[in-house]
Amino acid sequence: MNTFGRIYRITSFGESHGEAIGGVIDGMPSGVKVDMDFIQSELNRRRPGQSDITTGRNEADKIEILSGVFEGKTTGCPIGFIVRNTNQHSHDYENMRCVYRPSHADYTYQQKYGIRDHRGGGRSSARITISRCVAGAFAKLVLRQLGIDIYAYTSQVGDIALDTDYKKYDPSLIETNAVRCPDKEKAEAMENLIREVKADGDTIGGTVTCVIKGCPVGLGEPEFGKLHQMLGSAMLSINAAKGFEYGMGFQGLSMRGSEQNDLFASPTSFKTNNSGGIQGGISNGEDIYFRVAFKPVATQLREQPTIDLEGNPTILKAKGRHDPCVLPRAVPIVEAMAAITILDNYLIHNAQGTMHNA
Amino acid sequence: MNTFGRIYRITSFGESHGEAIGGVIDGMPSGVKVDMDFIQSELNRRRPGQSDITTGRNEADKIEILSGVFEGKTTGCPIGFIVRNTNQHSHDYENMRCVYRPSHADYTYQQKYGIRDHRGGGRSSARITISRCVAGAFAKLVLRQLGIDIYAYTSQVGDIALDTDYKKYDPSLIETNAVRCPDKEKAEAMENLIREVKADGDTIGGTVTCVIKGCPVGLGEPEFGKLHQMLGSAMLSINAAKGFEYGMGFQGLSMRGSEQNDLFASPTSFKTNNSGGIQGGISNGEDIYFRVAFKPVATQLREQPTIDLEGNPTILKAKGRHDPCVLPRAVPIVEAMAAITILDNYLIHNAQGTMHNA
Amino acid sequence: MNTFGRIYRITSFGESHGEAIGGVIDGMPSGVKVDMDFIQSELNRRRPGQSDITTGRNEADKIEILSGVFEGKTTGCPIGFIVRNTNQHSHDYENMRCVYRPSHADYTYQQKYGIRDHRGGGRSSARITISRCVAGAFAKLVLRQLGIDIYAYTSQVGDIALDTDYKKYDPSLIETNAVRCPDKEKAEAMENLIREVKADGDTIGGTVTCVIKGCPVGLGEPEFGKLHQMLGSAMLSINAAKGFEYGMGFQGLSMRGSEQNDLFASPTSFKTNNSGGIQGGISNGEDIYFRVAFKPVATQLREQPTIDLEGNPTILKAKGRHDPCVLPRAVPIVEAMAAITILDNYLIHNAQGTMHNA
Amino acid sequence: MNTFGRIYRITSFGESHGEAIGGVIDGMPSGVKVDMDFIQSELNRRRPGQSDITTGRNEADKIEILSGVFEGKTTGCPIGFIVRNTNQHSHDYENMRCVYRPSHADYTYQQKYGIRDHRGGGRSSARITISRCVAGAFAKLVLRQLGIDIYAYTSQVGDIALDTDYKKYDPSLIETNAVRCPDKEKAEAMENLIREVKADGDTIGGTVTCVIKGCPVGLGEPEFGKLHQMLGSAMLSINAAKGFEYGMGFQGLSMRGSEQNDLFASPTSFKTNNSGGIQGGISNGEDIYFRVAFKPVATQLREQPTIDLEGNPTILKAKGRHDPCVLPRAVPIVEAMAAITILDNYLIHNAQGTMHNA
Repeated sequence: MNTFGRIYRITSFGESHGEAIGGVIDGMPSGVKVDMDFIQSELNRRRPGQSDITTGRNEADKIEILSGVFEGKTTGCPIGFIVRNTNQHSHDYENMRCVYRPSHADYTYQQKYGIRDHRGGGRSSARITISRCVAGAFAKLVLRQLGIDIYAYTSQVGDIALDTDYKKYDPSLIETNAVRCPDKEKAEAMENLIREVKADGDTIGGTVTCVIKGCPVGLGEPEFGKLHQMLGSAMLSINAAKGFEYGMGFQGLSMRGSEQNDLFASPTSFKTNNSGGIQGGISNGEDIYFRVAFKPVATQLREQPTIDLEGNPTILKAKGRHDPCVLPRAVPIVEAMAAITILDNYLIHNAQGTMHNA
Repeated sequence: MNTFGRIYRITSFGESHGEAIGGVIDGMPSGVKVDMDFIQSELNRRRPGQSDITTGRNEADKIEILSGVFEGKTTGCPIGFIVRNTNQHSHDYENMRCVYRPSHADYTYQQKYGIRDHRGGGRSSARITISRCVAGAFAKLVLRQLGIDIYAYTSQVGDIALDTDYKKYDPSLIETNAVRCPDKEKAEAMENLIREVKADGDTIGGTVTCVIKGCPVGLGEPEFGKLHQMLGSAMLSINAAKGFEYGMGFQGLSMRGSEQNDLFASPTSFKTNNSGGIQGGISNGEDIYFRVAFKPVATQLREQPTIDLEGNPTILKAKGRHDPCVLPRAVPIVEAMAAITILDNYLIHNAQGTMHNA
Repeated sequence: MNTFGRIYRITSFGESHGEAIGGVIDGMPSGVKVDMDFIQSELNRRRPGQSDITTGRNEADKIEILSGVFEGKTTGCPIGFIVRNTNQHSHDYENMRCVYRPSHADYTYQQKYGIRDHRGGGRSSARITISRCVAGAFAKLVLRQLGIDIYAYTSQVGDIALDTDYKKYDPSLIETNAVRCPDKEKAEAMENLIREVKADGDTIGGTVTCVIKGCPVGLGEPEFGKLHQMLGSAMLSINAAKGFEYGMGFQGLSMRGSEQNDLFASPTSFKTNNSGGIQGGISNGEDIYFRVAFKPVATQLREQPTIDLEGNPTILKAKGRHDPCVLPRAVPIVEAMAAITILDNYLIHNAQGTMHNA
Repeated sequence: MNTFGRIYRITSFGESHGEAIGGVIDGMPSGVKVDMDFIQSELNRRRPGQSDITTGRNEADKIEILSGVFEGKTTGCPIGFIVRNTNQHSHDYENMRCVYRPSHADYTYQQKYGIRDHRGGGRSSARITISRCVAGAFAKLVLRQLGIDIYAYTSQVGDIALDTDYKKYDPSLIETNAVRCPDKEKAEAMENLIREVKADGDTIGGTVTCVIKGCPVGLGEPEFGKLHQMLGSAMLSINAAKGFEYGMGFQGLSMRGSEQNDLFASPTSFKTNNSGGIQGGISNGEDIYFRVAFKPVATQLREQPTIDLEGNPTILKAKGRHDPCVLPRAVPIVEAMAAITILDNYLIHNAQGTMHNA
């Protein structure tokens, strides 16, 4: 249950304040040139401490590849990797050893396992998404060769929302601000909102929009392996995710079928893309786009009434370093999970696609 | 890719106008009394031809159990079952043999496989959800013994929407109207809207809300087997699904963490349930609730411009029998997929839960 | 656990005296012409009642394809199929309802599930291998196009054994006798031994040898998906299998490495084939060959002391129709499982092979 | 394909001369006290350099646990671990960069992936079994609590073989000699044979016998998850394995069913155990025992004719450190894979077993 994917698979391990975060990538095609600078840079995008609107935990998050790469190329063997934890302040979490943070995984982990590593959220920490970013970076190395490009951006923070039409925004602007939003004015408003919320010791949620360009027709399996199902599963596995929609999603409900249907513009293209690039669970060659909702971070740097392990009422004010808003750092994770999913589906399709043309 | 679940698994087969729809249920616990009337009644809820707001195809959908049940009880062996197709009007679909319906799976299936059964939508027909309903009915037999109860209802059609708080509605009213909505007035408005849309040869979408009561604490696996992820994957695999949200979902984005966090009411209960019964991917003992968006049916009983297999422009007006709105019939399917998912997670949890207490 | 394979998968159901035996084939490539005569003939090879040395149960075993085939070709959708049980004599098994046959699955099923279908062995009957033969026949349709040919034969019955070198035997002779042995004299001796054993109400075991010709280099995954591991798993899943060896197997233990190593004859071929066509878990382009041991059938048509469900001692003399020796009918099942395994590995390899050359 | 198991799973990575060997254990029950001395001692049993009859590579093989253990107990979260490679002599392998060792994985890896890490055998090295030993050691911690005990021993080297009846041997003698054989005289003869073979620069194979005591009735799933099938798959995945048999295996073929059947001695025990503790794929409560054949090591420290990457004939005399016989070190690996398989089946059985009694 710590493995995602069918052919291209990431198996993940690690806790926030343990020795290391790491994982194993299986199914990586052989002979792919490994651009270590790119992989480290993808990790850096996820890294905390990048600005005043994210957590103050500041670590180099230096990746160490342990296997599967030989003389700069992948060998088809599994890629083991680790990132050491170096900047833990475990004493900050001592007061959480015996206390449950409301709406956090503290209570459910303790009930399920009878034991939990309380330090820094343990296994439920956002820090464990490091493994996803590494697997996503390797996937992107392959997708790049196939002409498939993926980008994501913060499309909403609290009530400040972009237009749902991703085509209105220039992806080259995403990394120009700390909140990773391609609309400069909205980005500024979002950052201000996050600072305001942070000053209150509070937190805020939002949405990430993701776009996949260049995906060939035919990815996804009907019935129980629909492409949007796999993407939805990938996104809902990210910490704090509360919802997923693709194409018109929840927004299209007031439209009639005759309005929403995508008519053909040519034998291989469409006049509109309300389908979000997926029809019947299979990619149709148009841009795939979807939106993921993230709730406000549960951990509060203000006092909250709660209970301890024995069930006694108590007051908790979290110490430690926490994001007031996950959105800026969720962007690279959404991209990573999308890359893993698309590559996995590409490889699955390959298995039979080649056959079908034989 | 036609299998769903890890321990409790349904493998499905069948096309709309083929010989039969069927499947194999694996992992069913042994010794469970099989209430065939209940199973048939669950299938009947999905059956078309129940009212004037669903498709006119009218079949008995009589289930035949072929294995896995002995002298009225499950044996732990796989349950094979079929439902014969008896009311096909395949000639109605002859004009779709060489023409793609816009926004339907016709184009993507043809591109992926180089061949497709065009009759009645083939494998992409809603008719194949029969297998899900059967597997869901068997799962419910077990969940019932465990005190877990699942119900779903139509919560939106077009712009007509219920309040998002499911506690306002009495589930015993759901089956009192054709649209399966527990609010009598809204139900009437929804039915009128569907009739109006149908008269235009058009279609309309909406949402289903699902509630799971009595689920014990501890179901769901952290990281890549989160309970809401599994539920989301299950729901997004249903034909025409476009979005999934649980708990506060997309609606909670304007709230701050301090407002959204669920405070403890007692050592084992909470004052609010914005989490939707799941924290850190693991059930917390509260009601689980979620919402699924369904798009308007793609097939139109009015003229639409489209292309044929050779890419030539043409005009298509579908014949055959089609739902103007999937919502009423989506309700039992949502319940079935929820039941399959919860039982599967229960059994997975069992595997280790027993150990943990040993 | 009733599913075998990763991409090409068979999910099986059915009991000996239930309504039907059947299954679902998933992952079948699309566009393959379905030769129904061939598929039925493969089933017929497994069929009982073919000679006086097999069980007297005589059924047509007529296959009914329910989905996944359209106008004579596979569609890429799952192939559901059933074979009705028509010649059950369930009353013959009434004395086994409460009595365990020694060395049979009766006791372990009852202990595991608390219930069992005792009629004709229920799920543990050799009759359920029908599903394997169907999936194997479809796999052979594809392998044939790829130039991969599979055959098996009875290589030992009791003490009567062929030479281990399969190259000494002409595969075209296998089907010329009831025991499926390509050595005419040994075949006669085997048949006589089986008749003799049968006259005693007793049973006898033996081995099947299987040869796979034309398998390309590169099938099999290192570490936990080795090709011989997958073949071994496939063979050991067959009823009554007790052992598996490939290449020199147990026989090569007295040889030294310098004798056993296969030297290169050319850049793509070898002087010997002690490896059995697999090196490091990956096919090397030579013939793959292996041997499977089958124990004597447990059910005896003579008196045996045993116990009943309450643990009381009793005497059992089985009625019903039972094979005195599984070997003749095991041959097509071994071939079928080999075909399923090779196709599955071919498709898995495709997934990455295509990539690797991209 | 680098993952083994369904609930208790090991995912492995690493090459002989890479940075580290490691893996991720998933599905480990929580709350289990981790005896690090035991785990390291299990690794030490596999370690090379223990005597003059194994390879001279001498490494501490110090395990580092990176996650999943908190304050000395397992948490239910995945256990990441690594063992650094510290004693590589990669230059010894430079002559293998462009040359294929006969009967080794060199040729097949190169053909499959188009690239390979030639140093020390890369991924196909016996060194990567470290990951299996770690996962086996953790499994043994759990099995010990359940009263399940596993031991293995060298039962044959070349022509020197023990009696097939494991009950004749005292397991406490296994670790008293370098070849891990419980018969003192035979052990000496085996060691002498290995020394003799080694002096010739040659290699020799043999068998390992494994015994599992205390396994409860009911483990294993009928049809495609038979317990002996899972054990066979586990064993055949070990480097150099060529065959697997359980119970009477290949040896029982000359016996008749009436001789081989295990009669009941009491309602829960048997007079004989020709079944090897498994009937119909399910454990029957008796000792489980099986035998695994290992071929002579392919790498020769003597001259052998072979070809290079371009297909030109050449002569290879391997340098580097190689085992003349894998048997002594295969013993702990066989035990480890048995432990992983039994625990996995125990947990799978738990999933439904609990239900069945509910």
